[in-house]
Amino acid sequence: MTTDQLISEIKKKKSFLCVGLDVDLDKIPEFLLKEEDPIFSFNKAIIDATHQFAVAYKPNTAFYEAYGLKGWKSLEKTINYLNENYPEIFTIADAKRGDIGNTSSRYAKAFFEDLGFDSITVAPYMGKDSIEPFLAFENNHTILLALTSNEGAFDFQTQKVGNQELYKNVLETSKNWKNSQNLMYVVGATKAEYFAEIRIIIPNSFLLVPGVGAQGGNLNDVCKYGMNEDVGLLINSSRGIIYASKGKNFAEAAALEAEKLQIEMKTILDGIR
Amino acid sequence: MTTDQLISEIKKKKSFLCVGLDVDLDKIPEFLLKEEDPIFSFNKAIIDATHQFAVAYKPNTAFYEAYGLKGWKSLEKTINYLNENYPEIFTIADAKRGDIGNTSSRYAKAFFEDLGFDSITVAPYMGKDSIEPFLAFENNHTILLALTSNEGAFDFQTQKVGNQELYKNVLETSKNWKNSQNLMYVVGATKAEYFAEIRIIIPNSFLLVPGVGAQGGNLNDVCKYGMNEDVGLLINSSRGIIYASKGKNFAEAAALEAEKLQIEMKTILDGIR
Repeated sequence: MTTDQLISEIKKKKSFLCVGLDVDLDKIPEFLLKEEDPIFSFNKAIIDATHQFAVAYKPNTAFYEAYGLKGWKSLEKTINYLNENYPEIFTIADAKRGDIGNTSSRYAKAFFEDLGFDSITVAPYMGKDSIEPFLAFENNHTILLALTSNEGAFDFQTQKVGNQELYKNVLETSKNWKNSQNLMYVVGATKAEYFAEIRIIIPNSFLLVPGVGAQGGNLNDVCKYGMNEDVGLLINSSRGIIYASKGKNFAEAAALEAEKLQIEMKTILDGIR
Repeated sequence: MTTDQLISEIKKKKSFLCVGLDVDLDKIPEFLLKEEDPIFSFNKAIIDATHQFAVAYKPNTAFYEAYGLKGWKSLEKTINYLNENYPEIFTIADAKRGDIGNTSSRYAKAFFEDLGFDSITVAPYMGKDSIEPFLAFENNHTILLALTSNEGAFDFQTQKVGNQELYKNVLETSKNWKNSQNLMYVVGATKAEYFAEIRIIIPNSFLLVPGVGAQGGNLNDVCKYGMNEDVGLLINSSRGIIYASKGKNFAEAAALEAEKLQIEMKTILDGIR
């Protein structure tokens, strides 16, 4: 999916919501455990109920790997279901991969070509040649960790490298990589003021923003400082939506939570136009 | 496996060789492609032929993920084969994972409990709470990327954070994490002099060293600067060993290459004792 297609979906749906599919068998409704593939059944119901309010879905691969082969099968079925039924949806493999060049190429092939994801999250520590193999896929997006929403973000990401914090150095440096127009960035919502400084470095890029809601970030503040002319934000919510209820009505409850966020987003989008 | 058991194996075998199982179907002998599971057949033959010269095996997960479900099955069979037949071997999942706390817990469970690896490589960018869930597994080791052997290592890892390079900051900081005694570190062999400075910060930890041979590092130099009283090094070789021949004799050719390295290692070990 191209950036233009994503922007057009955002404008059509008046939503820049990404739903995180972090599926934990201990947290989904018990009656689903009788199904042949409970994870896929859960995802399918959640996707069908929430897709009108969301522009992106983001399974975190850890939750699937934790169930071994079965988990990978559920992941495959989920991405196939999305691609077949909702081709207008932007899909993100939240995998945080990154390795030396020929190995990163393997990951890129696995997630972009074989699984068919539109994008993948990657970690910057190993530098340029660990990321460029992902960027070489010109119809895909590569989402680089910049400033994450967890406490450990302050261990290294906010340390000063010369005059600027490491995460800003990552942003600056990555602009020089080949096909950097295919980059998006993970920026946590925990400190909304950071977005203003980030926008000076990367005014046009899309930001994938975890940490709104459950982790304490505020949607209005993030938009105030982080939004650009093309919106430029994908706000992720996982637990707040997918675990809204453990009852028979779990999908409807998820839809209600997704709709609440979409209405907030619509208000913000209408307000600036 | 405990560190003491690993050290005792190293002394018994006079080897600190780790064989990287980075299996690419385009590079293995063609006649194996007729087998039901060519990757596992290849690994099994390589392991059987080289285990007397090696103390550790390291499949890089990217190479298995690239083949989807089939690849994961091959990975499962490989680790099971190692654990059942060679329990004295130290196993490393070269996965370079790392995520927020509850997600890292998932990865730790997947690789340590379900797959049964002794250790996993992890990336430091997300800080303490992304690594401690791995360290919580007290019978396992967590191998933190410090200084990698690729060109991109100079993008961020060697940038100065205050008075010291980021990779040294990672080493220092990680010493304060809970259960840090379970940490090992990835340190590439491309600049052997770095090992002297690294040993000042972490004198006792094991280092997993890629980049000897194919990537230009020199074994003697690495040992000169990096070895400690417990040896403290695992030297990885992948392509140089496993792709030594594409013929019927591929396993014997791999054994010869592994033995060459083991003999070099024995000479070094005998020299210092």
